[in-house]
Formats: sequence, structure tokens, C-alpha cells
Amino acid sequence: MSVREAIWGEKKERIEEALRALDEDLYRYIRDFAYEEVLARPGLDLKTRELLAITALIALGSPKELATHLEGALRVGATEEEVRETILQSALFLGFPRALAAMKLWEKVRRGGAYPGKGEERPLEDEA
Amino acid sequence: MSVREAIWGEKKERIEEALRALDEDLYRYIRDFAYEEVLARPGLDLKTRELLAITALIALGSPKELATHLEGALRVGATEEEVRETILQSALFLGFPRALAAMKLWEKVRRGGAYPGKGEERPLEDEA
Amino acid sequence: MSVREAIWGEKKERIEEALRALDEDLYRYIRDFAYEEVLARPGLDLKTRELLAITALIALGSPKELATHLEGALRVGATEEEVRETILQSALFLGFPRALAAMKLWEKVRRGGAYPGKGEERPLEDEA
Amino acid sequence: MSVREAIWGEKKERIEEALRALDEDLYRYIRDFAYEEVLARPGLDLKTRELLAITALIALGSPKELATHLEGALRVGATEEEVRETILQSALFLGFPRALAAMKLWEKVRRGGAYPGKGEERPLEDEA
Amino acid sequence: MSVREAIWGEKKERIEEALRALDEDLYRYIRDFAYEEVLARPGLDLKTRELLAITALIALGSPKELATHLEGALRVGATEEEVRETILQSALFLGFPRALAAMKLWEKVRRGGAYPGKGEERPLEDEA
Amino acid sequence: MSVREAIWGEKKERIEEALRALDEDLYRYIRDFAYEEVLARPGLDLKTRELLAITALIALGSPKELATHLEGALRVGATEEEVRETILQSALFLGFPRALAAMKLWEKVRRGGAYPGKGEERPLEDEA
Repeated sequence: MSVREAIWGEKKERIEEALRALDEDLYRYIRDFAYEEVLARPGLDLKTRELLAITALIALGSPKELATHLEGALRVGATEEEVRETILQSALFLGFPRALAAMKLWEKVRRGGAYPGKGEERPLEDEA
Repeated sequence: MSVREAIWGEKKERIEEALRALDEDLYRYIRDFAYEEVLARPGLDLKTRELLAITALIALGSPKELATHLEGALRVGATEEEVRETILQSALFLGFPRALAAMKLWEKVRRGGAYPGKGEERPLEDEA
Repeated sequence: MSVREAIWGEKKERIEEALRALDEDLYRYIRDFAYEEVLARPGLDLKTRELLAITALIALGSPKELATHLEGALRVGATEEEVRETILQSALFLGFPRALAAMKLWEKVRRGGAYPGKGEERPLEDEA
Repeated sequence: MSVREAIWGEKKERIEEALRALDEDLYRYIRDFAYEEVLARPGLDLKTRELLAITALIALGSPKELATHLEGALRVGATEEEVRETILQSALFLGFPRALAAMKLWEKVRRGGAYPGKGEERPLEDEA
Repeated sequence: MSVREAIWGEKKERIEEALRALDEDLYRYIRDFAYEEVLARPGLDLKTRELLAITALIALGSPKELATHLEGALRVGATEEEVRETILQSALFLGFPRALAAMKLWEKVRRGGAYPGKGEERPLEDEA
Repeated sequence: MSVREAIWGEKKERIEEALRALDEDLYRYIRDFAYEEVLARPGLDLKTRELLAITALIALGSPKELATHLEGALRVGATEEEVRETILQSALFLGFPRALAAMKLWEKVRRGGAYPGKGEERPLEDEA
């Protein structure tokens, strides 16, 4: 299974189509370099990698990309508790406003059922 | 064992003295809230927490505090490979300059033997 | 009067309910550590603290949390002029784009009447 | 032609009215210092200046101000390819999430026809 | 008294010489726009303005410029307690690493006697 | 000529040795992806790319990596005036402290003769 299948799950085709339509080269860099080269490296499991990604995205304050990896973390085996702890800890290093904004987004991801086993009434991309 | 003992290791007394001399209340917040309340939470092991801290500190670009947690990650059981992977992955989310600066600092931490079992010829704090 | 009552004013109950529903522990940290321990410290009046909070939030670029403290500043006695000057000055240190985005948000807060004495036709949280 | 006419084009009057209504002094600083003093300096052509502005705004993560300069770059003679390359390159220095968010915004600017020769069905300011 | 005299104090001539030698136009912008136009505005006293500057510079993580305004805050009438509270509060909004780095720098400023009434054995610029 | 030869010039071998000694994989990513894939793209000349890199690095506040690209800009044909204008403009978007720190570093690069035709008495890497 490719890293993209693991992280993007049932949304893989939709995300890939959207990325290709957006920019063919940026899609290729994200696919070949970011996902299948760097995130695919051994030495750190995908679950830990997704929690690191969440932390980096809380630091950047990028809601849409954060939502992608909040869902991705769950798909590669993180528990809801582990994601929550990652967000809570970010308050220490990045400040309470960043942690609070991330927790609100995380609630939307959970409520929206945007990962397997929850149903998916409303697409997160449209509201984040 | 307190979280501070686990992360600061043999430097615990020295770091605590320095922090107390710096500011009694900031020391108290770091000790009681940051370390023994938030970092001490169950739900995520200390090793993962330290890798998350490293990512947040790469994002901030704070070399001294990053050095503390590069050492701390090793003390709570992260392998050198796991720390390295954490730094390499940060290039994707935070850009190559951040990852490169972190890797240079990581090399100093490793060379300086600033964690148990390596000896400690030169104190990292003075050069970071 | 608690710091939360001073800063959140008539929205206190609504904000607390929302925070508790979001995450019980994050709420507790915000209440007990952020508001009633650190912001409650003597040595700096609440008005100055709120102007400092506004500056930090302009730096972070966090609109919802910024809106909370734009309102909060007024509740603890800052004049509209003082808030405006805080935003204008941020252009020097954080750049014009940050200052401009903050000024647009500030206009919404003023127009929305989201603080005592102005009425509150539309809740800011929904549009920020 | 003033720098504002060059960068804001047919939207100049609308933008100036909005800025003046927002804050008279901030408008004056943006007009007299930012645009007609600094951006008007010789030594670097306006096209390069707008690509630099785009990079700075990708770093800040400020979507509305970024949209203004994505349009502005085209007005002062940048090709769509040059803007796209500026965004792609930002992935190296600022990380993929920043580049991806900027590329999505750039697509909206292009689709929305928010610059001369494309028509302007929907104002970008309202959706960015 | 100009704002520069108030904030830079006995270092005014030295700082101005250094800035002019560095870049004549940047010096002019800092003098005429930053200090004597924006910081000189009424509506907010200089002491509050310097505490806001400190907060913005903690957010940026710029040690040399932060040192300048830590000293400046004292010169325009801030007490050591007010500066310390400003730094402590930054932990909430910008995270503990930023607050800790600022507190260390603040200790150097106080020890170095880099403001009136303390003597000035070692110039801060060289070590910050 | 490779992009690395163009940007790193006479320092290419030294930089490559240092990067390889630091981390073989990070070196490979920087060489094959950052320099020879993305920076080597057509559609934007290397001079403009280096000015964009300078802007991104001023935003990040990364002095060593900024020094590399201040030198690199000159090697690929930017004039001293163009580099200076890039730094001056950054004050508008990223604030005066960032611009001032960059201008000081730029002075060191110029004084240090760290690019062809100036001699190279003292290696910039050691002081930046």
C-alpha cells in the first residue's frame, strides 16, 4: 500500500484528481517526493509521522492541510486520544491560540465523520 | 521519576538552578504546568512527545530550546534514527532551511556528547 | 470579578460552555492557568495585557482568537483609539499585511457591536 | 502612472475607497509609504517586486493580501508561468502546505478572472 | 524630545551612526516613518508602545531588535516588573520556548547595565 | 553548469562536503530535489529565484541559510542594488526588525568578500 493510500484512504482518488487539476508538477512533487520518498522512509512509523505533521501544521496555522493530516493520523492508526494529546501539547510550544484553533478543527473532523467508520455527510474541505 | 528527570536527565539540577535564578515564576510554570501537568499526561508516550516538541521547535527556529529537546528525546528512549527522521520530515512541512539548521544543531548535540553515555566535553548551551 | 468575567463579559457563559464542550482539559488549562493564573498576575493592568494579547495574535495571524481579545480589550477599559493604535503599530514590527488584516477584523468587531453598549445583531464567531 | 494604478489596476478606486473607509491613517501609510515610496523605488522592476511580495505573503499565510498581489503581479507584467514558478519554489523554503494553499488561491484568482482581460464574475475578496 | 531620544537614550548617537553606515535609506525609513511618525502618534503612551514592541519581537524571535526595545521600555518608564510580566504573558500566546528565550535575553540586558543608572561594562549588541 | 555551481560558485565543493558529512540523505534531497529539480525549472531566471529565496529566508529569520543565498544572488547575476532593494522591500511585508537583521547580515556578506572578486578573509559561516 502506498503512503498516499494509507494517509488519504478512501479520499485518495478525489484528492489526487483535485491536486492534478490544480497543478500537475506540484502534484508530482507531493506524490513522488513528499509522500512516497520522505514520508515513506523507514525509521519512524506512519502514525508518529502524522502526529509530527499535525504539530508542524498547527505551527503554520494552515487549517485545510491540518484537516487532511488530522484525518490521516486516524487512518494510519492513531487513536483519537493520541491526536488530542498532540493538540493539547502544542499549547506549550506554540501557544494557546494555536492549540485552541486546532482543537476546534479537530472537533469538526470528528463530527464530520471524515474518516472510515464514521460516514461522511459533509466534506470537510468545504468548511475548514 | 518526574518528567523533568526523564527529559533533563543528569542535567536536571543544573537546568533547574539556572531556571530558578532566571525567573522563579517562569520556572514554576515550566515545572508544574509544562512538564509535570501537560507533558506528564497519559495518552502519548514521552518519546513521541519529545519528537513532537522537536518539530514545534524547528518551526519556531529556537536553537537553544531545540537542543534541550534533541537531548531529551534520546534520554526518553528515541533512537538517533528517529530524531534524524523527525528532522528530515520537517523539510516537507517547514521548508529545507529549517530542516538544515536543525540537522546542524543535531550534529552538535551528537558530537558534544550532550546526553548519557557520550561524555560531555563542551557544554552545548554555550555554542548553540 | 474573575479575569474571565472581565475579558469575556456577557459572553462568559457562552464561551465557557463552548470550551467545555470542545475539550474539558483544554478548557481547564485556559481557565486555571492562562486566565486565572497568568493574566491575573499583578504588575500589569488588564488593559495593557489585552493590548499585548492583540499584538501576539496579530503576529500569529489567528482571526478568531484575535476577535476575542479585540472585544476583551474594550471590556477591560481600552478605548477604541488604543486598540486602533495597537493595530497601526503592528505594521512596523509585523508588516502591513498583518496590520491590514487585523484592522479589517477590528472593523467587524466594532460594527458587529460585539461588546457592551453596542447591541449584538450578529455573532462574530460565525464570520471571523 | 502611480504604483497603485499599476498594481491595483481597474480595482484602484474600489480598493482605495475600502481602505479609506477602514482607516484613514493606515490607508495613508499604505499609499504614501508602502506603495509610492518603497515599492516605487528604482533598482528593481515592479514585476520582480510583486513576485517578492507573493513570496512574503506565502510565508505569512495571509490569503486576502496574497490574492491582491497575485493579481497585481499579472497587472505589472508577470506571466502566469512566473507566478506559478514563484509558488512552486516556495515549497522548498516554506514547506509544501504553504505552497499548496497558495496554489489553490492562485487557481481562484485565475478562474475568477480577477485581472484585466478575464472578466470578473465574482469578486475574490468575498471568497478568499 | 524625539521618540528616538526617548527610546534609544544615551545610545542614540551610536545607534544612528551604525544605522546610517549600514543603509542610509533604511535608516531614514526607521527614523522618519517608524519612530517619528508611527511610534510618535498620540493615543498610546510610549511605555505601552514599547511593551507591545517587546511582544511583537518575542513573536518574531529577533534577539538584537528585542534587546533594543527591552532597554527602550525601561528608558520610557516601564518598570522591570512590567517588562517581566510582558515576557511571562508571552508564554500563553507564543509558547514557552519564546518566553524562555526572551527571559534569558532580558537577564542579559539587566546584568549588562545596558540602560541608564546601571553602568555599561559590555555592549549588548556583541553578545545578543 | 548545474544550479549548484551557479549558486554556490567556488564554495560548491566545500558546501557539498559539509552537507554530505552532515547528512547523506538531506544532502541528496537538497541536491536532487531542491537545486537540480525545482530551482532548475525554466520559467523564472536564477537571479529572480535567488531574490525570492532571500525574501523567504528573511521571513523565516534563518541567518546562515540567508547568507548562502545573499551570496548566491550575486553569483547568478543580481547586482548589489537588487539585493538591497529586496531587503528594503521586506520591511513592508515582514516588518522592520526582519529587514534590519537582514541588512546587517548583508553588510557582513559584502564586507567579508564572500563572493567572487572580493577575496575571502573570513568565512561567513563562522560569524553569521
